[in-house]
Formats: sequence, C-alpha cells, structure tokens
Amino acid sequence: MKIAIYGYGNLGRGVEAAVRQNPDTELFGVFTRRSPETVHPVFPETRVFPADDAAKYRDDVDVMIICGGSATDLPKMTPSLASDFNVIDSFDTHADIPRHFAAVDDAATRGGKVAIISVGWDPGMFSLNRLYANAILPEGKDYTFWGKGVSQGHSDAIRRIEGVLDARQYTIPVQSALDSVRAGDNPELTTREKHTRLCYVVAGEGADRARIEKEIVTMPKYFSDYDTTVHFISQEELDRDHKGIPHGGFVIRTGSTGVDGKNKHVIEYSLKLDSNPEFTASVLIAFARAAYRMSQRGEKGCKTVFDIAPVDLSARTREEVIASML
Amino acid sequence: MKIAIYGYGNLGRGVEAAVRQNPDTELFGVFTRRSPETVHPVFPETRVFPADDAAKYRDDVDVMIICGGSATDLPKMTPSLASDFNVIDSFDTHADIPRHFAAVDDAATRGGKVAIISVGWDPGMFSLNRLYANAILPEGKDYTFWGKGVSQGHSDAIRRIEGVLDARQYTIPVQSALDSVRAGDNPELTTREKHTRLCYVVAGEGADRARIEKEIVTMPKYFSDYDTTVHFISQEELDRDHKGIPHGGFVIRTGSTGVDGKNKHVIEYSLKLDSNPEFTASVLIAFARAAYRMSQRGEKGCKTVFDIAPVDLSARTREEVIASML
Repeated sequence: MKIAIYGYGNLGRGVEAAVRQNPDTELFGVFTRRSPETVHPVFPETRVFPADDAAKYRDDVDVMIICGGSATDLPKMTPSLASDFNVIDSFDTHADIPRHFAAVDDAATRGGKVAIISVGWDPGMFSLNRLYANAILPEGKDYTFWGKGVSQGHSDAIRRIEGVLDARQYTIPVQSALDSVRAGDNPELTTREKHTRLCYVVAGEGADRARIEKEIVTMPKYFSDYDTTVHFISQEELDRDHKGIPHGGFVIRTGSTGVDGKNKHVIEYSLKLDSNPEFTASVLIAFARAAYRMSQRGEKGCKTVFDIAPVDLSARTREEVIASML
Repeated sequence: MKIAIYGYGNLGRGVEAAVRQNPDTELFGVFTRRSPETVHPVFPETRVFPADDAAKYRDDVDVMIICGGSATDLPKMTPSLASDFNVIDSFDTHADIPRHFAAVDDAATRGGKVAIISVGWDPGMFSLNRLYANAILPEGKDYTFWGKGVSQGHSDAIRRIEGVLDARQYTIPVQSALDSVRAGDNPELTTREKHTRLCYVVAGEGADRARIEKEIVTMPKYFSDYDTTVHFISQEELDRDHKGIPHGGFVIRTGSTGVDGKNKHVIEYSLKLDSNPEFTASVLIAFARAAYRMSQRGEKGCKTVFDIAPVDLSARTREEVIASML
C-alpha cells in the first residue's frame, strides 16, 4: 500500500515515521505547498513533490494522508483531493464536521474513491469509544476529559500577548472530578470543575509580568472559564523542560442496568501519549489501510471511523485476528 | 426489532431487562429447555416457549440471543439455530473459537442468516480494544487484567470440595503490576504476578478447615499458580456481603513511535461492572441490532465483533452519531 503525505508539519513527520512501523505500507513521498528544496524530511530518502503536481500521481498513490490544519487547510484540501485519491484527514472542528462530510462525500463519490474524515484520537478513538459505550449503556452519562497535555491553540494565544516571547500551555483534568465520575456519582460538572490550565511563559526583558498574567487569566473562551496558573520561566527552561507535545485524556460512560437500574457500570477509555502528532499519525495509518481495502472492494464516498469494520484496520488477516485477539 | 432469548439463566434475565432500555427492541419471548410453566421470568408478561418449538417462530423473531454455556450448550445450539434465525452468542472458550466459527458460518450461510459469535466483554469489547490498539501501535505489548470480580467457575470448583457448603471466589489484579504496565515498564509478568485469588468459604459443621484451605490453594490450574487467600465465613455473611456478580478488568497496550521509538504511549480500556451478566446482556443487545441491520442488507454468514461497523450498534441514525459523537 503506497501512502503519500500532503502537508508536512509535525503530523506529516509522524506519518513519515509511522509508515516504517507498518510493513504492509510504503511511503510514496511528501507533497508540500512550500518549495520542495526547502523541505527537509526526517529520512533523507523521502521524496518531496510540489503540492500542485499531486494529481499527476493519482495512479501511483493508494492513499493520500492529508496533514493540514482544520481551520483553513482541510475544508479546501480534502474535497479537492478526494476525487483523485483515497484520502484520510484529521479534521477536528467538531461543529463543522457535517458540512465537511458533505463536501468530501460529494467529491469522493464523483471520483469513485474512499475518504475517511476526522481520524485521530479526538475526533477518532474517543468518538468510537463514545459510540460503543452509548450503544451498550443507553441509560447513562458521558464524560470526556483531556490532558495532561499541551494545547497548541492556547499556547499560541499566549504568544500573541504583548511582551511574551514564548509559551507552553498544559490542559490538566481535575483529579477530584475524575474520581467522582469513576465512582458513579454522575456529577454535573462546569468547565471550571473539569480542567485546569497551567501556563509556562517566557516574558521579554522588562515586560510587565502582572499585566501579562492578568491578560492570560481573563482571556475570554481560552482561559476566563478556567482556574489558570501562570509561571514565568526562562527560554532555556522552556526549551529544556517543555519541548515535548504530550497529550491524552479519558472517555468515561457510567450507566445502569437491571430491573430497577440498581447495577452501575463504568466504561473508561484513556490515552497517555508522549507525542500527540505521532500517535495521531499512527491512527491515520491504520485507517488508511481500511480506506485502501474498502476502495479495492469497490466502495466509495465519505466515511467516518464509525463506518469502518475494525478488522479492516489490522495488518493481519481476519483468520489471524479471530484466532489471536478474540 | 423482535428479540428472543434462548436459554434462561442470569444472562437471559439480563437480556430480558436490557430490552426495556432499548426503545427500538421488543421481546418476543423466552425459549427454555425446562418445562415452560416452571420458568418464572423477571416480568410476568414475558412469554415462555419450549425450546423444541423455536423453529415454528422463525418468521416472528428478528434476532435470537442464545444464552447458553460455552462448555456444552453453545457448540450445539448456535449452529443448530443459525440456519433459521439471525443469532448472537457469547461463546467464550477462546481456543475453540475458530472451530465454533466454522460450524456457525456453515449453518448461517446455508440459511441466509447473520450470526455474530463471542459477543460480550471478553471476548467482545476487550477483543475490540486489543485489535484497535494493535492496529494503532504495531510496536508494543498487550496486557489484560481481570477483576476485581467473581469467577463462577472457580467458585464452583471450591464448592465441589468435601465439607464446603458454599463459596465465592474473587479474581483481583495485582495493583503493582498494573502500575508497572501503565508506567510503560513493559514488564514480563507471570500468572502469579498478575492476579491474586480471594475465596470466601462456608464450611460445614465440624469440617476440617485446614484441609479445605490446603485443597483450595493447591488445586491445579484453578489456584496453584496464584497467591490465594481463603476466609471462612458464615452462610449469612456470604449471602449478605457476596451475593452480587461484579466483574471487570483492564486491556492495556503500551507502545512506542517516532524515528528512534523514543515516544511512549499507553492505551487503556477498563470496565467496572456491578453485574457481569447484565452488562454482557447489554452488549448482546447492541450487537443484535447490528445483526438485524446486516441481515436486512442481505448479508449472511458468521461474523465476529471485528466485522461490525460501529455505527450499526447504535440506535441512532448515522447522521445523528456523526453530529453528536464524532
């Protein structure tokens, strides 16, 4: 199965590495909107092509993994590529998924290709766990917690404040809220009760730290609804202690069964990830395998993780997974 | 969707209750090998039919949920019913699954019906989580822990010892082993290092408790490979404190990604269940829904949880789950 990467940032690099962990896949190359000669792949033998030439290679690529951002890249890229290629993306603007789905479905159906959108861990594996748990326990309550992990968007928002040179923001689930959910208390939790935000900030020489801190903790949407802690550190400390991109979280459903609903159950799925983009890339590869197989069976159109039979994700045969994992 | 229950014990009672939690299902009735008049369903309006008459109702039942034991019942029941009905079973003798699959596949294909075998939580939801995690992290290690929960088979084994009136056995995961796995230590764990066994035993008047305890802890296969603790209690205490059938467990995969495999990831799925049979019944209903839908689409033959697109498990439409859960 020949994989190509469209868009080459952290996620694209993750896919480039993940292909080597999957013996049934090989990398055709990377497509970039930058000048190819300015792009330096992780592995020197990785070929780099101009994004505009992609359609020329429609017969050479089995699945195109689109590694763009959800805000402006993917709403254009995925529909425009889905009529020439089987495609996978990690579109994660939850509210806009139905619209994105419709655009991609139209293109993929026209081109006779398979597209799978919103693949990763949330949306992705977390979504799957929400669906399974809801199907099993129709009477219950869902909870999703994120972290401990780095939020790129929140880190960027801090960096835009005057006097800030660099910043790293961690989202942290509140342990007592997690404990209460797991105990089956069915708490109603406000935004503030579920997560705290921890910020490491590098301030410029002579910058007003009190003003920066106040601008952070009162920032609407990003921080004002949370208990936020701000630590000022040096650039050296930030580079030394906070250069990773860890993330993770918890999807929990609690519910009850039986004649009088007296028996309680807790279903929990959790991820603890050293590298958010590398893990997401690994999920993308597994779903690329499914897209390829579905395409070979003559299927077409836009799919989500909900539509994929799990066996299609595995590099092993159906007989092998039945014998070894069931 | 009309559900029927074939075999009426704890699991069958769980299905009877679970049908009421799923508005798109209704209960046709219970089929039993006992005299129907001796069977007292949870709900008085539940109809009870003789098992031998099942085939007469082949056009009245959309999915037959077979609630027999894996040792002797299911290997006969599921193949014999699968040519007349869409069927679901919870066959859990892992090593014999390929043989059971072949027998059921033959019958279901002949009858043009859909059968889904080995549905529940292990095999079932735990199997699914093993498959997803292996597909995402090809380089890693799998761990499954069970408990804290009641093992019916081990409780029965204790009851067969001379001088024992009643017994309840709990399987308990070793916390330090769980912690080591979650920390990404990739430990090699022996049977003894993963689980302990805790037994509550009611001894008869004047029975030799030292001999009973020795017979338990040295029992091959069941207890000799474990650290086993035996407590003698009264029948009243057993009935008061240990009448539930709780269970659960943990499926964990740890793995690494990246150029040099330096980034570690932990995927964990866990269940904490007040009632093992009621939860299993709830899983069976969700997969019964999928069997019915697949059958309506003209599919046939034996399937496992690996073959089922998650969207088919949900009572909601595809559009609804995409909009609300993705």
